[in-house]
Amino acid sequence: MVSKVKKDMQHMPNTFEDALEKTQKYVFPADDEIPLLCGKHLKGCEIAYETYGTLNADRSNVILLCHGLTGDQFAAGINPITQKPGWWDHLIGNGKAIDTSKYFVLSTNVLGGCMGSTGPSSLNPDTGKPYAMDFPILTIHDMVAVQIKLLDQLGIRKVACAMGGSMGGMQVLEIMTSFSDRIEAAMAISSSWRHSAQNIAFHEIGRQAIMADPDWHYGLYQEKGTKPVKGLSVARMTAHVTYMSEPALQRKFGRNLQDREDISYNFEVDFQVESYLRYQGKSFVDRFDANCYLYITKALDYFDLTNGGKNCLADAFKGLKARICLITFSSDWLFPPSETRDIMRALNAVGANVSFVEIESDKGHDAFLLEEPEMSDAVAGFLNALAKDLGL
Amino acid sequence: MVSKVKKDMQHMPNTFEDALEKTQKYVFPADDEIPLLCGKHLKGCEIAYETYGTLNADRSNVILLCHGLTGDQFAAGINPITQKPGWWDHLIGNGKAIDTSKYFVLSTNVLGGCMGSTGPSSLNPDTGKPYAMDFPILTIHDMVAVQIKLLDQLGIRKVACAMGGSMGGMQVLEIMTSFSDRIEAAMAISSSWRHSAQNIAFHEIGRQAIMADPDWHYGLYQEKGTKPVKGLSVARMTAHVTYMSEPALQRKFGRNLQDREDISYNFEVDFQVESYLRYQGKSFVDRFDANCYLYITKALDYFDLTNGGKNCLADAFKGLKARICLITFSSDWLFPPSETRDIMRALNAVGANVSFVEIESDKGHDAFLLEEPEMSDAVAGFLNALAKDLGL
Repeated sequence: MVSKVKKDMQHMPNTFEDALEKTQKYVFPADDEIPLLCGKHLKGCEIAYETYGTLNADRSNVILLCHGLTGDQFAAGINPITQKPGWWDHLIGNGKAIDTSKYFVLSTNVLGGCMGSTGPSSLNPDTGKPYAMDFPILTIHDMVAVQIKLLDQLGIRKVACAMGGSMGGMQVLEIMTSFSDRIEAAMAISSSWRHSAQNIAFHEIGRQAIMADPDWHYGLYQEKGTKPVKGLSVARMTAHVTYMSEPALQRKFGRNLQDREDISYNFEVDFQVESYLRYQGKSFVDRFDANCYLYITKALDYFDLTNGGKNCLADAFKGLKARICLITFSSDWLFPPSETRDIMRALNAVGANVSFVEIESDKGHDAFLLEEPEMSDAVAGFLNALAKDLGL
Repeated sequence: MVSKVKKDMQHMPNTFEDALEKTQKYVFPADDEIPLLCGKHLKGCEIAYETYGTLNADRSNVILLCHGLTGDQFAAGINPITQKPGWWDHLIGNGKAIDTSKYFVLSTNVLGGCMGSTGPSSLNPDTGKPYAMDFPILTIHDMVAVQIKLLDQLGIRKVACAMGGSMGGMQVLEIMTSFSDRIEAAMAISSSWRHSAQNIAFHEIGRQAIMADPDWHYGLYQEKGTKPVKGLSVARMTAHVTYMSEPALQRKFGRNLQDREDISYNFEVDFQVESYLRYQGKSFVDRFDANCYLYITKALDYFDLTNGGKNCLADAFKGLKARICLITFSSDWLFPPSETRDIMRALNAVGANVSFVEIESDKGHDAFLLEEPEMSDAVAGFLNALAKDLGL
């Protein structure tokens, strides 16, 4: 039985396809081409999604959920790929902070993703082969625009709340600027109005690690029957360090040795933190696509609500009527609180209805995915008040 | 002429050897085996070094200089490999902070280095082939012990001051604990008493990137005639981000585009910070050896003056009579000021003669290599007072 599981893990495409049969999918008609900011179009686009709760009669109880870089649509319940609870399973459900007895949660896999939505590993209808590096470069705006088109198809005129963390928060901020008439409220968590130089640097390292892997084959690994697992693993390890805080790493691992009494004096794993990182790298390659990682990191890097400093951030939010909640964590050094405060000040400058929550935590960027009672309370408080006002 | 230069760059071993002919070298007699903490011995060990200034008659004016992870013995003047000024050229010279009219600076390439000292790329006398991964695992203690042996050979009983930054600072701290009778004074800059979990994590990423490169050939790339340039480049890029502060990256590069008016919508370089990092990676592989990087990062990771928390830090410094100066920079997140304050407290606890300088700077860990007037002043002040007391 163990060997069967191992075998499956080595042949992820099959496992992936089997598991992804269970997710819902909207397929845009072939003539409904999706225009992208880069100037290209995508035809026959598919968007995979999950829903939690029940859509009410006037379709006014929708929460549009936006996932982070390596997240997916499986926010609640058991993720069929990893067999682990969804990334916000502790927040979503009957009576939970995102209360499915009131709300209908629509959770999509982003355009460019690898969990059923059209992305670089999808077949290019023009060639019958995977897009690979022929896939057009995406932006956060493109991801959001296709979500809005999906809302149109589902007959949802206005969502009660758009919410998400990290890259999900960027999507929320983009909706607040480009599609503000489609939201009653929005909640951007652990996010930023632009990707910083340091964050671009870490992403560039990840991309270079993937592209340096000879099994990447300039993106054509699906055709070649390989997988750039080593490069993708290094990319993930690099990113993972940025998700944690130095104090959390110190508290969790310190210089504790892994299954040994003394240092090894060789290049095997000595420290727990090494073992943990190697595990993070290895397990990631079983569930994520390397080209997808290239494209989505690029979308994050391109995100900048000031258009390269040409616009004032406040201008991005002019006329915004939705009520906004911003949440940030004190030890997040990937998207530090100062950047959320920038957003708050810009929203204040345009007289928006904004609440700001900074939570003391030593868990770094990861905190938004962990069970943090203060965050649950903030989410529940905001959404319950909203539900009351909307008569849900 | 340009093509000649390019050709040379592609054949670095020759350039290296030519350049390294200009450095001095001490060769330990074949029967004088160097014992290492791992239990193994090195025979026929060579230590490359540079000197600046003049050794006085009673050999009392020696500054032992210890370099950082990717530093070398070429601290002043022009580095023959890079053709750029040495890493502390702005500090070392007649009338400079490290005044060669008073002091004689002895700057060695660490054991395990790739600038002439015995390291993994050296020939193993037992096999006649490069050691590669048969080279024994080194520690900071081993690096220091061989420096002390070199002092013995040069007839230097006591150095006026041992000094260095980063890994150089670790060497200084190791001398303060293991060879405290060999120093009148010591100066540890931008360093720590142990490598933190986060720092081990970043080193492990670098090592995995090197080992993932098929041109690494399990360390046998010299025999195979290859060089793991992509892996080593990713390792360097990762480390380089940790040397800078987020504000410095933001100030220096922000989201500025590289030689373009608008984003490219492809995977070419868009941002200056990407271009800078790629350059850092590419130029590093011309001057550094990949196996050497594996061994030296491991030595840093192993460094812990409390022996895994078994000892109290203050115990490491018991009986220390040397006068000590500690320098740290406010924005250094690789070796944060808190860790230098830990050292200061431990030194205070044993009644050591210690001065502590925390310098406001946004330049991160790199600050110790840059022209920081406050640091120059602190170094000059400490060394001039010492020279006076020693009658130099």
